[in-house]
Amino acid sequence: MGNATRTSGLALAAILLAAVAGADPLPSWNDGPARDRIFSFVAAVTDPYGKGYVAPAERIAVFDNDGTLWAEKPFYFQAAFIVDRIRAMAGDHPEWKEKAPFRAVLSDDPKALGGLDLHGLLELAMASHTGMSDAEFERTADAWLTSARHPTTGRPYTEMVYQPMLELLEFLRANGFQTWICSGGGIDLIRRFSEDVYGIPPEQVIGTGVAKELRKEDGALLRLPELLQPINDGPGKPVWIGRHIGRRPILAFGNSDGDFEMLADATSGPGERLALILHHDDAEREWAYDADSPVGRLVRGLKEAPARGWQVVSIKRDFARVYPRPRSR
Amino acid sequence: MGNATRTSGLALAAILLAAVAGADPLPSWNDGPARDRIFSFVAAVTDPYGKGYVAPAERIAVFDNDGTLWAEKPFYFQAAFIVDRIRAMAGDHPEWKEKAPFRAVLSDDPKALGGLDLHGLLELAMASHTGMSDAEFERTADAWLTSARHPTTGRPYTEMVYQPMLELLEFLRANGFQTWICSGGGIDLIRRFSEDVYGIPPEQVIGTGVAKELRKEDGALLRLPELLQPINDGPGKPVWIGRHIGRRPILAFGNSDGDFEMLADATSGPGERLALILHHDDAEREWAYDADSPVGRLVRGLKEAPARGWQVVSIKRDFARVYPRPRSR
Repeated sequence: MGNATRTSGLALAAILLAAVAGADPLPSWNDGPARDRIFSFVAAVTDPYGKGYVAPAERIAVFDNDGTLWAEKPFYFQAAFIVDRIRAMAGDHPEWKEKAPFRAVLSDDPKALGGLDLHGLLELAMASHTGMSDAEFERTADAWLTSARHPTTGRPYTEMVYQPMLELLEFLRANGFQTWICSGGGIDLIRRFSEDVYGIPPEQVIGTGVAKELRKEDGALLRLPELLQPINDGPGKPVWIGRHIGRRPILAFGNSDGDFEMLADATSGPGERLALILHHDDAEREWAYDADSPVGRLVRGLKEAPARGWQVVSIKRDFARVYPRPRSR
Repeated sequence: MGNATRTSGLALAAILLAAVAGADPLPSWNDGPARDRIFSFVAAVTDPYGKGYVAPAERIAVFDNDGTLWAEKPFYFQAAFIVDRIRAMAGDHPEWKEKAPFRAVLSDDPKALGGLDLHGLLELAMASHTGMSDAEFERTADAWLTSARHPTTGRPYTEMVYQPMLELLEFLRANGFQTWICSGGGIDLIRRFSEDVYGIPPEQVIGTGVAKELRKEDGALLRLPELLQPINDGPGKPVWIGRHIGRRPILAFGNSDGDFEMLADATSGPGERLALILHHDDAEREWAYDADSPVGRLVRGLKEAPARGWQVVSIKRDFARVYPRPRSR
């Protein structure tokens, strides 16, 4: 990985030129090793005369979503979607009031919610995500994305994205990269905002999905209460990257140990490779968590990053700005 | 579908202009309704002032592979790959000589091969496609694609592709379309030649796949003897198109009733839509078959095409040339 850390003359020239022209492509990144590393990597793989050159077709970058492109505190945003949907659907299901795990959601008792086990959460996820057509699901997802607000900032969830990451996605695309999402979250929810918010079209979103079948009468895709295997997390990520993309990414960006295998896979091929880990260490502007958080737990990645040549990105140190300015509405 | 058959003034102008410039994008297509239909459809969806305009991001075209982009006679080419692999692997499996279904392949008796049932074929497919890493499979696939020859023409299978279809793929891409393959055949075999032969990158290939898992020791993807469900044929095609693409194609091209649901799905949305069926009706230059062929069976598509406004493409009438000129080697 030695070459990846060296800023080539060409890279330096490109950065200086951009600076002189006033067109810094990463204005929300502070000067420092992370920003340097990104610039030198992109310079190396795009320099047609350099030995690190990578053809545009092979410039594949994969990004985790929860905690990497948008926040994941105080809970995964998809969990908020599930809870809101269960409450909205409760009128049609009077039996839920007395039935676990629905009772925990409808009781408005935060303790009951926190006490849900994986089996209970899965049942809630299936009840809110399946048993309808894709078109119906998309309508409820769109309505929720428009109306729901983050519990502590009051902003739409789609504004709880990281401005420096938006700039990085755009910078990579401007340099011939394909930018993909590879998330443990539900693929169909992410696809409803990824193009508008991240500039990532639905065909470049990989996530956890449910089984579907074609309804004979009208050709609608019906959503079935069964998760596709493997879940797109941990060792499942390289499996789904293989299914969707069919070639190994050269850049991967994650934030938790659920991204470890994705980062290891991206950096296991020949030539220039870059893996980055976003470290949530800014309790003032965002949240500070790693080893002890049930959401976004990060231990192994931090420990092995130096030896593996993976770049740790600190929100506190490397992000000049965290969230984008609110969209005018 | 009335609008799709009308050649707009702009479309006509574009065709005339191309003709004057000597730059016919579809030189291997004979004049006729199929060629006209393609030109007027592309003109309609790319005319920014027309009411049929479709933004580039939504210009998704899906193509079946066997019998649509390359030939499928006297048997699916993947079947030849399976048979060749079983024979090549037989030295390491002395027990196969006495064991069905392998015996049928190793006996060199065409009748025994023809008598295999679906269960037997599946066992052969799994033995030749799984139990190794992706990287190992790719090496055997590459070697086979280079060395194997079609039994009647003696040409590499990758030259048994239809020249008019190569031109159509290129023409669509030149007009901002994404061109995808959606094949019942194995995704990983197609991905080994699709970019080189069709200009279609691996991430735009959809096919039938096998389960895989990450090997902990070295991060290799291991191929498991289990087909992913549903098989990417018939009603499975819209399911996998949804998984990979996440939006409905506006153009679909197939040749058998296994493509029916894909064509129905593509033409079920609003706006301009185009479905095409390649009819193998040229026994002299290719093969002639439809209702009575076990491979590429076509009955319902032909019957319902007129009422549904689907365009039947006749190899005999519409293809000026069938195969490309041999590549210099």
